[in-house]
Amino acid sequence: MTERKEFRDLAEPDAAREAIASLDLVPEPESVPLEEARGRVLAERVDAAIDVPGFDRASMDGYAVRARDTFGADEADPVELDLVGAVHAGATPEVTVEPGTCAEVSTGAVMPDGADAVVMVERTDERPADGSGTGGNDGGDDGGDDRPARIAFRTSVAPGDHVMAAGADIAAGARALGPGTRLTPREIGLLSALGVDEVPVRGRPTVGIVSTGDELVRPGDDLDPSRGEIYDVNSTTIAAGVTEAGGEPVLYPHAGDDYAEMERLLREAADECDLVLSSGSTSASAVDVIYRVIEERGELLLHGVAVKPGKPMLIGRLDRADGGESAYVGLPGYPVSALTIFRTFVAPAVREAAGLPEPRTATVEGRMAVRERYGEGRLRLMPVGLLDLGDGGTTGGGAADGAAADGPAGDRDLPLVYPVDKGSGATTSLVEADGVVAVDPDTEYLEAGEPVTVQLFSPDVRPPTLLGVGEDDPAVNRLLDRLENPRYLPVGSREGLRRLRDGVPDVAVVAGPTDRDVDSVVLGEWSREWGLVVPDGNPEGVEGVADLVDRDLRFVNRPTETGLRRSLDDDIGDLATERGGSRADLTDRIDGYGLTLRAFESPVRRVLAGDADAGLGLRETAERLGCGFVPLGEQRVVVRAATDRADREAVASLAAELDDDGTERLLAGLAGYSA
Amino acid sequence: MTERKEFRDLAEPDAAREAIASLDLVPEPESVPLEEARGRVLAERVDAAIDVPGFDRASMDGYAVRARDTFGADEADPVELDLVGAVHAGATPEVTVEPGTCAEVSTGAVMPDGADAVVMVERTDERPADGSGTGGNDGGDDGGDDRPARIAFRTSVAPGDHVMAAGADIAAGARALGPGTRLTPREIGLLSALGVDEVPVRGRPTVGIVSTGDELVRPGDDLDPSRGEIYDVNSTTIAAGVTEAGGEPVLYPHAGDDYAEMERLLREAADECDLVLSSGSTSASAVDVIYRVIEERGELLLHGVAVKPGKPMLIGRLDRADGGESAYVGLPGYPVSALTIFRTFVAPAVREAAGLPEPRTATVEGRMAVRERYGEGRLRLMPVGLLDLGDGGTTGGGAADGAAADGPAGDRDLPLVYPVDKGSGATTSLVEADGVVAVDPDTEYLEAGEPVTVQLFSPDVRPPTLLGVGEDDPAVNRLLDRLENPRYLPVGSREGLRRLRDGVPDVAVVAGPTDRDVDSVVLGEWSREWGLVVPDGNPEGVEGVADLVDRDLRFVNRPTETGLRRSLDDDIGDLATERGGSRADLTDRIDGYGLTLRAFESPVRRVLAGDADAGLGLRETAERLGCGFVPLGEQRVVVRAATDRADREAVASLAAELDDDGTERLLAGLAGYSA
Repeated sequence: MTERKEFRDLAEPDAAREAIASLDLVPEPESVPLEEARGRVLAERVDAAIDVPGFDRASMDGYAVRARDTFGADEADPVELDLVGAVHAGATPEVTVEPGTCAEVSTGAVMPDGADAVVMVERTDERPADGSGTGGNDGGDDGGDDRPARIAFRTSVAPGDHVMAAGADIAAGARALGPGTRLTPREIGLLSALGVDEVPVRGRPTVGIVSTGDELVRPGDDLDPSRGEIYDVNSTTIAAGVTEAGGEPVLYPHAGDDYAEMERLLREAADECDLVLSSGSTSASAVDVIYRVIEERGELLLHGVAVKPGKPMLIGRLDRADGGESAYVGLPGYPVSALTIFRTFVAPAVREAAGLPEPRTATVEGRMAVRERYGEGRLRLMPVGLLDLGDGGTTGGGAADGAAADGPAGDRDLPLVYPVDKGSGATTSLVEADGVVAVDPDTEYLEAGEPVTVQLFSPDVRPPTLLGVGEDDPAVNRLLDRLENPRYLPVGSREGLRRLRDGVPDVAVVAGPTDRDVDSVVLGEWSREWGLVVPDGNPEGVEGVADLVDRDLRFVNRPTETGLRRSLDDDIGDLATERGGSRADLTDRIDGYGLTLRAFESPVRRVLAGDADAGLGLRETAERLGCGFVPLGEQRVVVRAATDRADREAVASLAAELDDDGTERLLAGLAGYSA
Repeated sequence: MTERKEFRDLAEPDAAREAIASLDLVPEPESVPLEEARGRVLAERVDAAIDVPGFDRASMDGYAVRARDTFGADEADPVELDLVGAVHAGATPEVTVEPGTCAEVSTGAVMPDGADAVVMVERTDERPADGSGTGGNDGGDDGGDDRPARIAFRTSVAPGDHVMAAGADIAAGARALGPGTRLTPREIGLLSALGVDEVPVRGRPTVGIVSTGDELVRPGDDLDPSRGEIYDVNSTTIAAGVTEAGGEPVLYPHAGDDYAEMERLLREAADECDLVLSSGSTSASAVDVIYRVIEERGELLLHGVAVKPGKPMLIGRLDRADGGESAYVGLPGYPVSALTIFRTFVAPAVREAAGLPEPRTATVEGRMAVRERYGEGRLRLMPVGLLDLGDGGTTGGGAADGAAADGPAGDRDLPLVYPVDKGSGATTSLVEADGVVAVDPDTEYLEAGEPVTVQLFSPDVRPPTLLGVGEDDPAVNRLLDRLENPRYLPVGSREGLRRLRDGVPDVAVVAGPTDRDVDSVVLGEWSREWGLVVPDGNPEGVEGVADLVDRDLRFVNRPTETGLRRSLDDDIGDLATERGGSRADLTDRIDGYGLTLRAFESPVRRVLAGDADAGLGLRETAERLGCGFVPLGEQRVVVRAATDRADREAVASLAAELDDDGTERLLAGLAGYSA
């Protein structure tokens, strides 16, 4: 088993790139209707098959003449020619311009035979047939029956004047568009001018996505959490990434724990696709099936890469029934890891196969907001969040926000970059991080302020313009809905204040009493009623924290970082003082005191589900979800901005939402809330 | 007729923007399947409806325990617990962990009742039922029937250790994504985790495109140039632009010159669309129909804007049969003008209605390559070409080309910007210009080197990395196919040399003798045979230029800028010397000497069509298109690079294609070509 050894020696990231580059994902070119060609890439050069225009075309309203007939004409001494007819755009000329004659033409008309130039109408006069009177020609209606018999020309023209010769725009046989051209509206326009309605384009690589893992359920299907089922995140995420990179994703049905079926699906996907992806399964048996299929009918190029995350990456080829082969890449299982590895190693190969360049917005320059230690001896693709301090015009490596930009921006305007580490398993990291920073194995730390390049999770990712942290609160959620592209991390009041002090966020929302004193500006505040949420009608007759201590009630708590918990602990402290004991004596006697749930609604939902007799929460949530509520007090919720950020446009917008009227609107209908 | 006055007074561009902003294009929100949601914009906040994970989840392979049972355990003094069963991912636990017991769990498994923590397998030992022997647990197979009866724990754990509580990733009720969020793969991932398979998104504004103009034919339909028909460029170009801006284009059929039908179509489009666009017709009557429809059933907001191009822009509202109204904008008729006005005034409104921000790549900073005079008293949207000197990583306002970037780039790396003015009517301007520079009415000139902001025709436009100019030549066309994103303007040898001297292009291709001496580096050269192209079999027995002078033959020439023409004129000059007269004496006697066609194939095609007896051309073209050929000589074709550009990566790539082997491949099969 020589290959087993290979699995242990992690490959360098460059070797992984080379292995993927060695795979052939390029599909056959295809032909698409013009109206579907936008965004595609020309497979071959397109030469003009016709002249544009296809005829000598009048480019002014006026009279078609033989230029020689006008020679010598000027204002003082006009030349008169017989008017023999008219030609309009979209009509076949029914006249010939013989020497001494002219024909009326409108812009776009076919030049009549004999004529080789146009005199614009403004330089001519109409002469009636009888020779009496003259009338300036000013582009008015041609007057039907009143058409004059002769036209006086007050200027001479040269052959070709005001005529666009056939092929002058594009000549038949000319090179119109080169192979590899990305088709944007203007290329669609040129192809239209040439009459092309079927366009030869590069094919989109077909990427099969095989989902492994017994516990995965497709979004929209019923989920049975009691069986440990979770929704399949990777298949849809990677499918969207494939589309974004110019590929065509094909989702294969779940094989569940039927390994024969999984093997069948892998082979089917290889037969049908240019590339097959699977994402890591928690099941060792599933990985074994993939190995077996590759080893029996394919070639394993590489297993294990010295990159974090992504160590278990697997690269190989799968034979096809028709004798060809498909590429295979196995992605890690955690969503952020899978997307990171896809973005870093696979998407470039898909784009390359589709003939598309890397989008200019795929990376963003930023600067580290904090010092970050590192030292793991392998390449780290560190998930990071971004905060765009430039107030709007973000960040393709500098300032590109239109006419107002006056040259490239300095480092000061670079967005802030901060590490996001919630554990790779967290799905929320997907939206709390904006991309990754590649940290070399030999980098010991990144300094605060150090410039870094962020590989965005998508070229369409827009870094938020406001970063808030702090208490989880329904009024805050409403407030966020009124802002443009904010990010809010509900880390609790305590942790929020700590982060505000450390200088990353713009704003912290703090509820209840605090010990910390952080230099900040108050943007707004309100008050909320908190207490114990109980089943509707309060069947246990809960009256306060004493009941939690003294009776056999199942309680659900909130984490110590939250303002709600701080207020509860103060209450229990008061009770302990009253009883002459320590707070810990009392909390030890509360069943579920240590069971803390992350979001403000969670304890209420446990009560609703019958899994708890009381939960720490807000009157608002209790009433909205139809529970009983035992009030224990009110607490202030204060929105604080970092002093040095108070002038930012995004912070000012937030402050504007928190004026008296704004706060009133914000709290309208929220039970237990007051300004 | 007070409104007539309004038509004469051109509105300021800002007034046009305000008029368009006052139109309501916002469609109703809709619901789309998750797999189609990428790129769309959330219409409303999405809160989590479920806990993720939906159960307390083991986050390690190991044993589920009651944490209290492990208190005090360490390497020296392990605690032993009875093993009562196992739980795997995707399965419902069938065991309960009572005090003194444990259950095997794999990562992702549901925590069994009773257990509140997991001890990782590495910190445990298996103990057989009889108590004899010990075996380290190292994560191997669970061993089926050999499952031990007791497990020794060499560490203690706290409640919650290695357990992800239900809702710890996202809690039911938590704010997941805010309204206005652009859905990229990562948001698709988060929605998947929440089980959302139908996503509430902003609607795409429906934009009806009504084509006016008798002469317009849809690409793919038959064209009759003798009637002055041309392909409709604007409808497809603008439709692609609408899609790009996040709208849904609807093309209405051509009404031809049936004004009743045109009126019916306008009203149908208003009934069905959020916005109706038409593009200028050469027909005054068509414009009259549009006026009448708007005045009878709608409101005219503005007609005529002080902007070049785009003066005839028309903005209004159209009443709908159902009592609502649709917006209407009339665009100018020339393709570049229509796209310019669409991009500047209409696309922003479509994006706004779709909830999309302006793409970061919609503009590019550059610097003027040449001095440009201006002074027309109205805003000019000047079409410009770009040349990316940065060799690849272009230009979102600076350097953003990934890991190699070391801070914002200086002015020197800004792409060169040069005006493109082929007359607004030229379709080729669509692809020879990359965007427009807005020049204020009071700007007298733009200096060479002056920084300017270019509004690209599309966010997907990539400025070329190589700009070539000069002779039109089939070998050059082949050469271009081998380069990445080049632009070549076939302006002729003379004009090409002039432009090379003026410092804009990288490269000029020069054929035949030249007078100019331009500082440059020769990258490659070859020779081509030129002469007179005649009908197959040379029915007139043409032998040389003397026949053109002396006989009654219809000739087709090439422009004076071309090398072919220069060689022909030299030949005629020699004949004149021989005969003792002037060249002009001879050329006056050539029928068609003044008829010059732009592309190298054009004279040949005239001959083929029977419209000429001889044309100036190449043996290559004559043989390829099946004509006869009367050789007059050979001329050198030389590829010259500007000296200060010779080191550029793109120029080096070109030079590499022109080494001996490259030139041989280039010329293979081209009749009359030699190295």
